[in-house]
Parts: sequence; structure tokens; C-alpha cells
Amino acid sequence: MPYIPVEEHLPGITGLLEYRKDSAEPIRNLTQVLLRGPSTLTEGERELIATIVSHNNNCRFCTSAHTAAADLLYEDASVAEQVKRDIESAPVSEKMKALLTIAKQVQQSGKNVTAQAVDRAKGAGATDIEIHDTVLIAALFCLYNRYVDGLATVTPHAPEFYEGLAERIVNHGYTRLPQGYDHLKKK
Amino acid sequence: MPYIPVEEHLPGITGLLEYRKDSAEPIRNLTQVLLRGPSTLTEGERELIATIVSHNNNCRFCTSAHTAAADLLYEDASVAEQVKRDIESAPVSEKMKALLTIAKQVQQSGKNVTAQAVDRAKGAGATDIEIHDTVLIAALFCLYNRYVDGLATVTPHAPEFYEGLAERIVNHGYTRLPQGYDHLKKK
Repeated sequence: MPYIPVEEHLPGITGLLEYRKDSAEPIRNLTQVLLRGPSTLTEGERELIATIVSHNNNCRFCTSAHTAAADLLYEDASVAEQVKRDIESAPVSEKMKALLTIAKQVQQSGKNVTAQAVDRAKGAGATDIEIHDTVLIAALFCLYNRYVDGLATVTPHAPEFYEGLAERIVNHGYTRLPQGYDHLKKK
Repeated sequence: MPYIPVEEHLPGITGLLEYRKDSAEPIRNLTQVLLRGPSTLTEGERELIATIVSHNNNCRFCTSAHTAAADLLYEDASVAEQVKRDIESAPVSEKMKALLTIAKQVQQSGKNVTAQAVDRAKGAGATDIEIHDTVLIAALFCLYNRYVDGLATVTPHAPEFYEGLAERIVNHGYTRLPQGYDHLKKK
């Protein structure tokens, strides 16, 4: 049972974002800018960063949601699966392997990001802004994972729940749904 | 040396918030709402949450900045100092001891927040929103600490730097300084 009274039909992050709307708005905006804004990283690649961090923080809600989003964007469920299992043998570019390695280091601690990992990313063609965004996306999911688990929110088991959530964040992004989309909120 | 080209005269978080302004804006807004918005927790109490998390993440820049802000708000440097050393013997309320304990748990992992710690806080009079905000502020500083250290930003040594920064965030908050305050930016 959650530590605070969130709406029962809104598990994980969804209830928290309704619980305090004035803090939810900048969290939604930051996520939209980083994960859906203009970038030389694809939306799928950015969802993989969210996935690897959530997975290593052992946050089941966020891992399931962002794995489902990556699966939808890649039209292939093996990419996120393999990234979680072993980055080096995953079917992603050398640049992405280096950036996902940096994300994993950020998950542990900012101090764990090595010059070697950054050099590898730059050597594989990563730009400064890609390195910046990788670190900030990873840090953002360290916030999300702690927010979701720190308040003991409910984690649904049904894969259908996460598929519905992924459809929503892939098709509508992370900002608040406009009026008239209430049917999507219930998913 | 930072991993990305931030402006040399802007150490720690200050250079990062200038490096990518569209992600900086929601980060600033979230911090302003949580640390300076209406709350039954004082600004000093909220700075203590930022301080204990940054201290435990071993982020020297953020620890120094928020310690200086707490010192200014309490008009007493022994409060933050004692909180960092040992929460239970610090000169803060029982409610704050319980909330700071929750913040320390969030720093480790969302999963580490215990029902016992939450019960203790509620027993000491903490409201649901105070528990919510404690978890989210702690999670936010897990983001900040990783952002600042993950990109290897510069950490000034001079206490005067942090005193200047604290004066700015205590007197002007966390949102972007309006035009005409450029002299404060250089501090």
C-alpha cells in the first residue's frame, strides 16, 4: 500500500503526478524536452537509457513502462531485453553501447562516470550534447525510480497495463494529456 | 576538467543550467516549487533535506551550496553541520529527524524507504504532503548530484563562492534571475 493516499486506479508514477500537480508539471516538461524534444538520439535510444537506469535501480514499474515504450519504438522486443542483459552484445550502435555504459555509471553515482567511458563515447561519434543528455536522462530516472518506489506505489503485473502506458507516451509524449483524452488516462 | 564545454566562470550546476537552457527551465521550476513554494516545512528545513542527500551522495558542490543556504536561513551553522554528522542528535524537531531519515533512505534507493520510517514521521506529526515532498526533494537532489558530478564539473574550494550562491538562492530563489541581476550571476 502506498505511503500517501494516491488514487487507487492510478498505479506507479501516474498517481503521484496527479497527487501534486504543481510539481508534476515541471517533471513532465523536463521529461518531454529530454525524451521527445529535438535530438540526434532517436526516441527509442532515449527510452533505452531510461530502461537501463530503471532496471539497475530495480524499479519494476519504470522498467516495465520504458521497456514497453522502447519495444514499441523499435518494433522489436529483443533490443531492450538484450540491453538489460548485456549492453556489449546488444543490437545497438557502438555509440549507444558507450552512452548506455555512461548511463549505468550515473545510476550508481555521478562520481562513477569515468573519463574512459566518456572518451569511448566521443571516439564512437557521440557529441557533447548527447553525452550531456545521457547523463541528465539517467539522473532524471534516478529521480523517477526513487519517487515511485520511495512512496511504495503500486506496481501492476499485467503486461497490458504497460503496453497501454507505452502507447500513450509514444503517441502523446510526457506532457499532460489535453481534455478529451480521458479514456487514455484510465488505461 | 568537465566532460563537456561549459563556461569556465560557471562551476558546478551553474554552468550546466546555462549549457542547455530548455532542460534547465523545468529543473529550476521544480526546485522553486519544492524548496521555495508554499509549504508547512520551512525553507531551512527543505534546505536540510537537500544537504543531507547531497552529503550522502558525496557531491561536494551541492553539499557546500545547500549547507550555506541552510546556515543563512537558520542564522546558525551548527544545524546543518550536526544533521550531516548525526541526525538523531541534531537540534531539529522530532518530525524533521524522521523526515531526514526518510531522505537518507531515498538517497540509497527508493526501495530502502521503510514503513517504519514513514510511521515514525506520521507519529511525529508529519503530513502526507510533507512525506511526499521529502521523498521528491531527496529524489531531485539525487538528480542534481548525478548531473553535477556525472559531467565532472568544477567544484570551487573558497567558502565565499558558496556564501554568494546561498545569498542568491535564499534571496532570489531558484528560478532564472531577471535581467538586471547580472552582477549576481558572476558571484
